[in-house]
Amino acid sequence: MAYSPATPVSSAPRHLCETARAAFVAHFGERFTTGAAVRDHHARDESAYPPVQPDGVLFARDTDDVVAAVKLCTQFNVPLIPFGIGSSIEGHVLPIEGGITIDFRDMNRVLAIQPEDFTVTVQPGVIRTQLNDEIRHTGLFFPIDPGAHASIGGMTATRASGTNAVRYGTMRDNVLSLKVVTATGEVIRTSSRARKSSAGYDLTHLYVGSEGTLGVIVEITLRVYPLPEAVTAAVCSFPTLRHAVQAVTEIMQSGVPIARVEFMDERAVRAVNAYSKTALAEQPLLLFEFHGSPAGIAEQAVIVQELTAGQGGTAFQWAEKPEERTVLWTARHNYYFACLQQRPGGRAITTDVCVPISRLADCVTDTAADLQSLAFPWSIVGHVGDGNFHVVMMIDADNEQEWHQAEDINNRLVLRAIQMDGTCTGEHGVGIHKMGFLKAEHGEAALQLMRNIKHAYDPNNIFNPGKIVSWSA
Amino acid sequence: MAYSPATPVSSAPRHLCETARAAFVAHFGERFTTGAAVRDHHARDESAYPPVQPDGVLFARDTDDVVAAVKLCTQFNVPLIPFGIGSSIEGHVLPIEGGITIDFRDMNRVLAIQPEDFTVTVQPGVIRTQLNDEIRHTGLFFPIDPGAHASIGGMTATRASGTNAVRYGTMRDNVLSLKVVTATGEVIRTSSRARKSSAGYDLTHLYVGSEGTLGVIVEITLRVYPLPEAVTAAVCSFPTLRHAVQAVTEIMQSGVPIARVEFMDERAVRAVNAYSKTALAEQPLLLFEFHGSPAGIAEQAVIVQELTAGQGGTAFQWAEKPEERTVLWTARHNYYFACLQQRPGGRAITTDVCVPISRLADCVTDTAADLQSLAFPWSIVGHVGDGNFHVVMMIDADNEQEWHQAEDINNRLVLRAIQMDGTCTGEHGVGIHKMGFLKAEHGEAALQLMRNIKHAYDPNNIFNPGKIVSWSA
Repeated sequence: MAYSPATPVSSAPRHLCETARAAFVAHFGERFTTGAAVRDHHARDESAYPPVQPDGVLFARDTDDVVAAVKLCTQFNVPLIPFGIGSSIEGHVLPIEGGITIDFRDMNRVLAIQPEDFTVTVQPGVIRTQLNDEIRHTGLFFPIDPGAHASIGGMTATRASGTNAVRYGTMRDNVLSLKVVTATGEVIRTSSRARKSSAGYDLTHLYVGSEGTLGVIVEITLRVYPLPEAVTAAVCSFPTLRHAVQAVTEIMQSGVPIARVEFMDERAVRAVNAYSKTALAEQPLLLFEFHGSPAGIAEQAVIVQELTAGQGGTAFQWAEKPEERTVLWTARHNYYFACLQQRPGGRAITTDVCVPISRLADCVTDTAADLQSLAFPWSIVGHVGDGNFHVVMMIDADNEQEWHQAEDINNRLVLRAIQMDGTCTGEHGVGIHKMGFLKAEHGEAALQLMRNIKHAYDPNNIFNPGKIVSWSA
Repeated sequence: MAYSPATPVSSAPRHLCETARAAFVAHFGERFTTGAAVRDHHARDESAYPPVQPDGVLFARDTDDVVAAVKLCTQFNVPLIPFGIGSSIEGHVLPIEGGITIDFRDMNRVLAIQPEDFTVTVQPGVIRTQLNDEIRHTGLFFPIDPGAHASIGGMTATRASGTNAVRYGTMRDNVLSLKVVTATGEVIRTSSRARKSSAGYDLTHLYVGSEGTLGVIVEITLRVYPLPEAVTAAVCSFPTLRHAVQAVTEIMQSGVPIARVEFMDERAVRAVNAYSKTALAEQPLLLFEFHGSPAGIAEQAVIVQELTAGQGGTAFQWAEKPEERTVLWTARHNYYFACLQQRPGGRAITTDVCVPISRLADCVTDTAADLQSLAFPWSIVGHVGDGNFHVVMMIDADNEQEWHQAEDINNRLVLRAIQMDGTCTGEHGVGIHKMGFLKAEHGEAALQLMRNIKHAYDPNNIFNPGKIVSWSA
């Protein structure tokens, strides 16, 4: 049997008793199920933890369903776990303390598009690609792209970002307002739809990144942007990562508004070449994207070529035609599959630290040195403009030693990042997997302030318990 | 004697007893004073409320001083009010429930400049113009400009913004991390200096806009930006505000990154012309600023001229030379003084709603209609790109009827804005003055969630009590 890391649980499980089950069935009918197949489907995400089945799954139809579920869960003292599409890689959706899962599959409507205000309002089950399909006719788009076909609810709950955060920010910057069901079963809006406000504590940002632990998000108002008139991509190779990072810093200092800038180390390039049949130079590489007017982009091109050349950049290549751009970005998007191909049947373990850009070269270089001794495949990609990078390690899922090696690498990497004034998670969230690092990152006093919020907002510990902060210190 | 609006007080004052005073003097020596002149200087801000003297004033020298003050205030059950330069217009710094004021005049150092990371770390007493003077040599600047020569601490505490939020965001978007003294006298950092993070609840945003009610901010890490290569301004007149707003919406939809876009109604233009000896057409006007490369700005110019012409824009005028720009923006900056000149000896009452841009024309038009009956001077200016606008009313401070008229206008305006899915305060904050509107804006349940945070973070109600939310429902 395959090895799995042990799942830390902070409180004893509280399961659905028969009376409670009957109450859920009576209220929700067929929308609530305790069938084995459905429970099994909600027992896992993309994390390494072993599956944990919820006691039942509610396919919520509307906010009223969520309110009723919160009240029933409170009445019967049963945890409640929101579920988007299960693409978390840190164990967010595992019902480790028992309870029911609310699946937002059927709350998947774009509720409003306000083109003049550059906002849209959506239900949590809307998938980001679906959103862009539904608003394309307005000339607007939603930029956040975490790679996975994630739900907007999940992206909000984990404060997700991705490749173009350098230009457009993360979910932190692009969620304008939320509708939330609170522990009392009341429905609140965290703010008006005004672009800015100084009217009291910032409840919106408190819920963004709260991972279902403070309430259940049932509507999300997002900022959207005009589709760029022109888009161009470019690749450039560098002697070392340090040269690449320096080039990016200089480009940003020059004021060029890079929309995306992705780093791949030579191992990542090799994996991508093998998988996508590309012929990129197998050395540290930057993949750029620029959004703007045709003249603006042409002007940026001159600056970028000059600054990359100044840092030893070679094999500079523009991809102005859509099909050329698609080749490059598809190769980058398929990086994860390229890694899987390096070890068929293997399991990918992904890290997620983020450091100030001035420390990025040091952090990646030290990490690469730490990785040298490993016998299994690994490579590094990064969102350089943000200081966020991922190590992907391809381990044999049945090999306990490889699990431990990968976990040890991650532990050292996280502590290295924190020492460099960085964070244990740039965009994947805490879930279960990063809980142990929050004390090192924030300190005990700040962690206690977070715990105070959990206690104040969820006095019965109903909302996704055992995630982000433990109930007791 | 001049009339003043009554100051609402939610709890009985808790004053400094003689033992407490002696303890402060023993600990802080000459940095703590109970002298009448100093107390009087801290008894007022720019709001309409009558002065309220603090029981003493501490000129804090460092974080240790703040920690000691929090501990002494807790020990003796005395409120503590942070004070920047006193430019609040909503009564934030009035010690309405007694207590001592911490003045940050002497905590005014720029602690670190990290040009590669586009961040700076400052003490709360740093003035925004001082910050820009101190970082100019790096080619970077801090964009937020609330008009007043405000302190960064005060701007953080009130979630301030100003004329170029449309491009650079508000304090919400530009504070990366804070150091805060909590109710237990512990010093926390709200986050690392990484550009993005998903590591737990967003304490940074909880403190931005908390107006001194949840802890005392002692360090602020801000995002800064490359100084634009080129800057151009333009003015254009319109038949009505609605035409002006429509032009702005279309310009933003076109993707032109406007850095500033300010609206003035015909009355504001008239006041400015009289004060600044400008000859602007006395009809609704937009004042633009663009940041970018020379070619980028030239390109934007074509689009902007076309789109403004399409909305009946006339008297379009570019100001490419710095001295031409200075004339225009100085006229705008001196708008407040132009209003004062309309009624020498009068008092300016300023409103601050913000609505979704799609509702801005309606909100301003309805408000202007409501203002027609007034006998005293008034005019309207707005940060159109954000949907935020201000009515300035010049009343006779001795005339109780005019006070009431102005307050009634403000009440109706706030409720109108809230009905249009807007906010009672776009950038000035809640203080005392807007507390009564938060229930209408957020609803009772959300307001209670805010109160829960206050209770959890400040169990003894020491931090600037009686502001934002009342202690009891």
